[in-house]
Amino acid sequence: MKRIGFVGLGAMGLPMALNLSRAGFAVTGFDLRAEARAAFGTAGGRPAAGIADAFSGQDAVVLMVVNAAQAEDVLFRQDALARLSPGGTLILTATCPPASVAALAGRVEAAGHALVDAPVSGGVVGAEAGSLTIMAAAPRAVFDAAKPMLDAMGSKVVFMGETPGQGATAKAVNQLLCGAHLAIAAEGLSLAEKLGVDPALMLDIVSGSAASSWMLRDRGPRMLEDEPRVTSAIDIFVKDLGIVLEAGRDAKAALPMAALAHQLFMSVSGRGLGARDDSQVIAAYRALQGRT
Amino acid sequence: MKRIGFVGLGAMGLPMALNLSRAGFAVTGFDLRAEARAAFGTAGGRPAAGIADAFSGQDAVVLMVVNAAQAEDVLFRQDALARLSPGGTLILTATCPPASVAALAGRVEAAGHALVDAPVSGGVVGAEAGSLTIMAAAPRAVFDAAKPMLDAMGSKVVFMGETPGQGATAKAVNQLLCGAHLAIAAEGLSLAEKLGVDPALMLDIVSGSAASSWMLRDRGPRMLEDEPRVTSAIDIFVKDLGIVLEAGRDAKAALPMAALAHQLFMSVSGRGLGARDDSQVIAAYRALQGRT
Repeated sequence: MKRIGFVGLGAMGLPMALNLSRAGFAVTGFDLRAEARAAFGTAGGRPAAGIADAFSGQDAVVLMVVNAAQAEDVLFRQDALARLSPGGTLILTATCPPASVAALAGRVEAAGHALVDAPVSGGVVGAEAGSLTIMAAAPRAVFDAAKPMLDAMGSKVVFMGETPGQGATAKAVNQLLCGAHLAIAAEGLSLAEKLGVDPALMLDIVSGSAASSWMLRDRGPRMLEDEPRVTSAIDIFVKDLGIVLEAGRDAKAALPMAALAHQLFMSVSGRGLGARDDSQVIAAYRALQGRT
Repeated sequence: MKRIGFVGLGAMGLPMALNLSRAGFAVTGFDLRAEARAAFGTAGGRPAAGIADAFSGQDAVVLMVVNAAQAEDVLFRQDALARLSPGGTLILTATCPPASVAALAGRVEAAGHALVDAPVSGGVVGAEAGSLTIMAAAPRAVFDAAKPMLDAMGSKVVFMGETPGQGATAKAVNQLLCGAHLAIAAEGLSLAEKLGVDPALMLDIVSGSAASSWMLRDRGPRMLEDEPRVTSAIDIFVKDLGIVLEAGRDAKAALPMAALAHQLFMSVSGRGLGARDDSQVIAAYRALQGRT
């Protein structure tokens, strides 16, 4: 596989597409936003004229879109899939519910193509450095053929299984832990505040004890700032914990801690703060404890 | 201060008392269990004949008992406090609710003595190595005078404030995070199991991602074992998350994630599994998801 289309040149998609170019693939990039296409061109990529151009005659297309509905829309409503080379491969890197990915894979296979379920973890930093963790699921031969492309975007490419949806499940578990850890860090620091213990001192203690989590160490300091910079928004966890709960609902699995964490992010978003840094889930606790 | 009584020679208390001896203090140790007193003697310590002996003429007494009720019982029902040297200091290292510690401090001060609220974190390993984290609260001069004793037991002695109860608050926040992280790790791994993703592979991925926590890395592997060794029991978190919730109740602070985590530990204990390793909070999830 040499010729690749790339759809979705956002904050993560753009550097991922450029890393594929650098690895020697001929990448044609598309985004609905003209400025994103222009940025790709400026960086040395080949922008596509339209969605059809991004798919026509490609060996593979990477879909770094917002969600499963957008992936489906691109593939079927705009009939792009039919333009892919016979036997071509779709690489779905968006975060989607496992059942949606499985359904999408069925439709893609029925059309004579293959789908690699390949959600990523590592954020913009990982996308730029080519150090993403990629949780991939596809029939083994399909995965093996796609591996060089995945290696160009990530440093830890993990084969989760032969069934598309298993990658999405792994991403869901990852996001369950991240989101719930954020809520717990906020709960702990808000309890310290309420009981008159210096939260910065508290954070220092628990960052170095068995009470620590990656999220606590990374987001904890920003929980104590008034106007923290945004590295990832509250609404990302409204979406991602929503996907976690959808995965649970589809499998009839009870996820009480994740469901509760989701409600806390939701309440912050509902107060109009959805674009704030995700550390600000602590705003839910400050509302509960009477400190605004 | 040179002469110290030490009450509670259990798995943590025994090595803590021995570390005080090694640091040059004259330590008289007491425990209700004759075998614990004997073990202290065998290790070179001076066992007390009774609770009165452990207090009589001491400059300080360390109380490493099970809970606040036991501390109160030792001090007042057995009238030990009156035997302490005039102006002597009590060092309360047990995990207790903040309000109980504040009330106890009031009674101790009324009797002409001082109390250092000094709960510890680090487990048996930290107690043996003298590397405990000690979260101490007392009037500054009292803390300063007690500091050499605290340094003999811990490597990170943190001054939390001048009001007894602030140490207990810090320990409560620490335990809130530890207990909730355990429940979340179990929830994530049980979702992987339910959705057909290898939980060991899943654990490997999230142990190295932003989804990681100290508890996930330490207890996660034991969640996947059938008969894991016990490093700390389910019932410890039934007790400690109970103290967290009591701290919240006394201050009217809402702690939804901790309350939910407590229920999960409670359900495992209620099935007769309270002495199992705390990693087995995953048994609550396996019951919920239909895998026993």
